[in-house]
Amino acid sequence: MTDGLEIRPVRGIGDVVAGDDLADLITAAAPWLADGDVLVVTSKIVSKAEGRLVEVPADGPERDAARAAALESETARVVARRGPTTIVQTHHGFVMAAAGIDASNVDKTHLVLLPADPDASARRLRADLRARGLDVGVIISDTMGRAWRNGLTDVALGAAGIEPVRDHRGETDPYGNELEITQMAVIDELAGAGELVKGKVDAVPVAVVRGYPRSGIRDSDGAAVLLRDAASDMFSLGTTEAVATGLRTAAQLPDGPRAALPGLPVDPAAVDRALTAIADAVSHSTVIAPAEAITGSGATAALHLSTRDASPAGFMRLGSDAHRLRVALVAEGIVTLSLPHEDGIRLDLSGA
Amino acid sequence: MTDGLEIRPVRGIGDVVAGDDLADLITAAAPWLADGDVLVVTSKIVSKAEGRLVEVPADGPERDAARAAALESETARVVARRGPTTIVQTHHGFVMAAAGIDASNVDKTHLVLLPADPDASARRLRADLRARGLDVGVIISDTMGRAWRNGLTDVALGAAGIEPVRDHRGETDPYGNELEITQMAVIDELAGAGELVKGKVDAVPVAVVRGYPRSGIRDSDGAAVLLRDAASDMFSLGTTEAVATGLRTAAQLPDGPRAALPGLPVDPAAVDRALTAIADAVSHSTVIAPAEAITGSGATAALHLSTRDASPAGFMRLGSDAHRLRVALVAEGIVTLSLPHEDGIRLDLSGA
Repeated sequence: MTDGLEIRPVRGIGDVVAGDDLADLITAAAPWLADGDVLVVTSKIVSKAEGRLVEVPADGPERDAARAAALESETARVVARRGPTTIVQTHHGFVMAAAGIDASNVDKTHLVLLPADPDASARRLRADLRARGLDVGVIISDTMGRAWRNGLTDVALGAAGIEPVRDHRGETDPYGNELEITQMAVIDELAGAGELVKGKVDAVPVAVVRGYPRSGIRDSDGAAVLLRDAASDMFSLGTTEAVATGLRTAAQLPDGPRAALPGLPVDPAAVDRALTAIADAVSHSTVIAPAEAITGSGATAALHLSTRDASPAGFMRLGSDAHRLRVALVAEGIVTLSLPHEDGIRLDLSGA
Repeated sequence: MTDGLEIRPVRGIGDVVAGDDLADLITAAAPWLADGDVLVVTSKIVSKAEGRLVEVPADGPERDAARAAALESETARVVARRGPTTIVQTHHGFVMAAAGIDASNVDKTHLVLLPADPDASARRLRADLRARGLDVGVIISDTMGRAWRNGLTDVALGAAGIEPVRDHRGETDPYGNELEITQMAVIDELAGAGELVKGKVDAVPVAVVRGYPRSGIRDSDGAAVLLRDAASDMFSLGTTEAVATGLRTAAQLPDGPRAALPGLPVDPAAVDRALTAIADAVSHSTVIAPAEAITGSGATAALHLSTRDASPAGFMRLGSDAHRLRVALVAEGIVTLSLPHEDGIRLDLSGA
């Protein structure tokens, strides 16, 4: 481990415009930079140097429309909305409010987009500094919100010349326990540490971390390894949006499955839970065979529904109740095929 | 802003046991501590000093059962489950895997719980150090996962003698823009910075941050201000759990609302979206009046459904389709009352 870190602000970089050479600006402002240092560079000056700006009207509904258009073009998918807040996943894979588009520290007729490829930007800046004889790590940082916790922190959008993750897998503690917590997102912690000496309005867009051990550097390492894809993310959608997905699934549940029933075993306890879930909502005239009356197993398992009220209204209520039960079974991972006939409805069941 | 920070590890604290005086241990190991320093203290040694341990069998199913019991008693609500991972909100309000219960850096017959009140622990340690003539800030830190990003970072569970949030509201940047990003969770960034010099297995449970400006300290400040309550959290539930909530809502939707219809205006565009959503799932024999045929407004708005197939099976399909439509309307924020009659079903509509 390290003997300690120093974190220093880099002042005097001034305004950055498209085409500026960041390596020039940074080495001029911090002639004390040394091999082994880690630079934490605010993404905004990277975006400005790279010309990642869009022109917008200074105010009025035209500004709002231009801003909405910029958001849409930076968005891969909407994650959650509430009031004026839209959290999206960007084309890079970052989950951020407003796709990280920012109107601060820029004149009123421009918006600043995130760098197109922050890892590439970090590699480029690192290479430019190496060309000047400096071997440093580079982190490109930005400010993000989090689920579950108020307040924002800076994290790494891009990185080069530094291991993004410190991996403790296989290490054992002094008690002989193998570590359960394994992968520390150290470049995010470094980005946050850099933020502590930078200012939002003080024109300190770069911090330098000195003393951090940069071992095992591979050229392939970048901040992109910290991106969790939606499929493996337990929080890929806002709660409201996910509830709506559940409702839509229920509303769109077809009478039959789109393909043949998979014919997998059905857990009677799961069927019981589904029956219990809907018990209060079901019409008094509907009779559903109890779970123990499930006939057969796998694709031949079936539940029978009938009505005590053989009128049009009774049959309609039976139809609604069958849909309730089918949706409750979906929630338990059981797929069904609905087979209405003159005496009631048979639901063929299958695990999924 | 600061001229820079130093972050130093505190070595030699050794094993901590219940009843230990952390102020003694820390000042003995770091005689160089000075007024104005911020201590980042790993929660584990706070828990150990406070005796927040539970005895468990060293292995076998009994250990698993004891661990599950500890998790349950630390859990206020389950947020998400996937495979062996359970993410919960603790009684403190933290959202953490396994409620922050840890089996590392402790012998095999104990689990370490989080401190019962980390802000109180931080205040106590700060007061104990003040009694020794040292005026320092204290952060109690632990390692947490995040939504959307791989890897873990350290954040603040408790804090005393330091402002938890740096608030930029009202500040303007050099271009005259008022800042949009306002509240930085600086104690989380400090906790992460401390982690960079601490080790998971190196017995470095404390880091010291020197040079961080501790302005505007109030005794009331603590890390609890960073807790976002579930009601205001856009990610209060795992996606799978929230989808299941939507399915359950659909399955349990009663024929009538539990109370009288609110009688609020109904947006015809929302009705159109609901009709479009279910179009592919609806039976060919069901006829749903188009949205423009909505009669009246508010509590008197209604949609009519009928069937081309006046057989029991036709009426059952009509009943299922009515339920589909009602669920699709719920997803659009429209509540309904279902009124089956001899010729079909009337759905009375209301905004919600």
